[in-house]
Amino acid sequence: MLFLKGTMSVLKLEECRERIRKELDNTVDFWLKYSHDPLHGGFFTCIGRDGKVYDELKYVWLQGRQVWMYCRLYRTVDRFRKPEILEAAKAGGAFLRKFARVSCGSSGQWKCAFCLTRDGKAVKIQRTIFSECFYIMAMDELSRVIGDEDMQLEAEQMMEQLICWVRVDSSGLGRPQLPGDVPANSMAVPMMLLCLVQQLTEGRGPEVIQKYRELASWCVQKILQHIQREGTAILENVSVEGAELPGCQGRLLNPGHALEAGWFLLQFSVEQKDEELQRTAINKFMELPYQYGWDKEHGGLFYFLDVDGHCPTQLEWSMKLWWPHCEALIAFLMAYSQTKKPELLERFSKVYEYTFSHFPDVQRGEWFGYLTQGGKVALDFKGGPFKGFFHVPRCLYMCERILDDMLANKD
Amino acid sequence: MLFLKGTMSVLKLEECRERIRKELDNTVDFWLKYSHDPLHGGFFTCIGRDGKVYDELKYVWLQGRQVWMYCRLYRTVDRFRKPEILEAAKAGGAFLRKFARVSCGSSGQWKCAFCLTRDGKAVKIQRTIFSECFYIMAMDELSRVIGDEDMQLEAEQMMEQLICWVRVDSSGLGRPQLPGDVPANSMAVPMMLLCLVQQLTEGRGPEVIQKYRELASWCVQKILQHIQREGTAILENVSVEGAELPGCQGRLLNPGHALEAGWFLLQFSVEQKDEELQRTAINKFMELPYQYGWDKEHGGLFYFLDVDGHCPTQLEWSMKLWWPHCEALIAFLMAYSQTKKPELLERFSKVYEYTFSHFPDVQRGEWFGYLTQGGKVALDFKGGPFKGFFHVPRCLYMCERILDDMLANKD
Repeated sequence: MLFLKGTMSVLKLEECRERIRKELDNTVDFWLKYSHDPLHGGFFTCIGRDGKVYDELKYVWLQGRQVWMYCRLYRTVDRFRKPEILEAAKAGGAFLRKFARVSCGSSGQWKCAFCLTRDGKAVKIQRTIFSECFYIMAMDELSRVIGDEDMQLEAEQMMEQLICWVRVDSSGLGRPQLPGDVPANSMAVPMMLLCLVQQLTEGRGPEVIQKYRELASWCVQKILQHIQREGTAILENVSVEGAELPGCQGRLLNPGHALEAGWFLLQFSVEQKDEELQRTAINKFMELPYQYGWDKEHGGLFYFLDVDGHCPTQLEWSMKLWWPHCEALIAFLMAYSQTKKPELLERFSKVYEYTFSHFPDVQRGEWFGYLTQGGKVALDFKGGPFKGFFHVPRCLYMCERILDDMLANKD
Repeated sequence: MLFLKGTMSVLKLEECRERIRKELDNTVDFWLKYSHDPLHGGFFTCIGRDGKVYDELKYVWLQGRQVWMYCRLYRTVDRFRKPEILEAAKAGGAFLRKFARVSCGSSGQWKCAFCLTRDGKAVKIQRTIFSECFYIMAMDELSRVIGDEDMQLEAEQMMEQLICWVRVDSSGLGRPQLPGDVPANSMAVPMMLLCLVQQLTEGRGPEVIQKYRELASWCVQKILQHIQREGTAILENVSVEGAELPGCQGRLLNPGHALEAGWFLLQFSVEQKDEELQRTAINKFMELPYQYGWDKEHGGLFYFLDVDGHCPTQLEWSMKLWWPHCEALIAFLMAYSQTKKPELLERFSKVYEYTFSHFPDVQRGEWFGYLTQGGKVALDFKGGPFKGFFHVPRCLYMCERILDDMLANKD
């Protein structure tokens, strides 16, 4: 045990911050060393255990996330204010602007591709909004670093189109309208939009904040609709009216996603000074998924579960993925820093212990992403189609900052 | 060990046939008991360990496959010539004809949905050909049982459209043309088409056989293009010219699929009296995937591998699925029955031993579908979005028939 049950010494938190800081440095070094494409800009994301690129495809979610993360580190952490990081972010941004957007037939709308060849040719377009979301995050954060107002405007324009797809007319996404395909409120959508509102409004003037105020409330309301079963579960998919959906889709639990939504809501509740929302974020979106999501036998958070205890149909349901653990660390540390309730630090401590004893590759740096239920490495690459320079460094960055604040005010 | 190494007694083969026959009876009973929807026709396919329906969605691949399998059993196995099976097949066929086909916008073409609600509303359409393939299989086999020539014609018309999508113009599938999305020869496509040619021509006159002759040759040639790396590997995806593709897609091995292609080719080689093709089917499509696909540590066939030994990006790569084992059983028993080479019976014996000691649910009937690498049940349902009344009964049915023939001619 890193922390003795119920007694958290300042010394332990300092040790913990030290470990986190070192992991962050190592992670940044790994991606600086192995992921850059000097020929075309942008980032390789399929990177093997030892750093070798095993596929040259460039996944757009991960391009956008890496640009965002580099810029965020460059802009807000002194020791990462290095030309090497800035140049890589700019090259990644240029690659995205040049290649990610694809004109979609007769609609006159632009979609972002999901995947590009090394030299930027579109390979696949998803019929969802997420490539666009990470494009916006990247452009807004990069525009802050380099002071490019056109780029910032472009991010806002893409945001307008995204809002239109979600709230007005989804036909531009290219999904056929089918009578059995009832529109649903899938947690990812209001979560991502809330995250984007926080990104676009951070430190901006009252005009921009006003512009997104109603959208933020809508997102919060849509996220809260996922509290179901008389307040005992966060269901991943509900109807647009906020009712439970039939079948597997309706019963799906995704503990890591609920925890991520939890800290999004918690951050928002602080900005809004909304204490009820703060309590809901912690009691519902953190405590519940921890209770049903933690594997009592082997430790770690399950990827998917069924609220009625049926076996999920996702083959990977029982695997332990790195990112839900990243979200849990941020969530419980943030919740503890705000409330100082010892049980929240205990949760953090338990997740920390599992995470740091299972995911980091002590031999070759960075983290493994995919473990078996029993905690053995199941896939040993450091980057893949869905794992890039994002969840690990975002978690370490946020935890380091929260610990910095806590330890600076340790009276 | 079921068989002593190198010495296969007739008695053991008889025991084996007995076990297979019993498993087939149990499997048929399970689906007759739990999968029928008396209200709307068609079949529930999401069926839990104990037979309980945990989701009412009707997956079209599995509707088509169940109709086909019921009809095939009814038509060719005396003990399954039961009104109950015929009625269920007819109700399934009627459900498919009424609901599976969806008109696709302005193209004037029909697609089959991938998934329907219980009462037949389309939920999802895939941008591939497979729903249509299983629709054709179902309609052709059902038309043979009930003597419906219109239905048979309809199957052939759907086949024409399918051939057009694959060989002339794929735009009706609804995939956007993207510059980085280079057309590929994916093993599933020529395999399915060859399977359909065999279905549509079985026992038919020279006119029909002539009609599909050139297509069959094309399929065989396209399947043979997957022999790569100087004859040492069956790669799942190659270029349309038959060259290796870059990256993970190009390096992907799918041992179960290669084995299935193997017995499709072997069956075809017998019809054609093509001894060279027979040798290729066995030496390349059976022996190679067995060599690289068998898990030397835990037994069983891997789901996916990378020909250069990289870790596959599919999270389930190391799991043991029921269907590759079904295909392996058919492949090696068929190959042994044709060649009488003892090493092929040894392969069959090894796969048989693993399969029958891991997949059948001895308590509640039918087979588990998804095991961990170590052979523990990872998902305990009997039916799901991709597991229905198909691979298990097809395997048992074919193995029983091959054993019947072998044991009848055991001189």
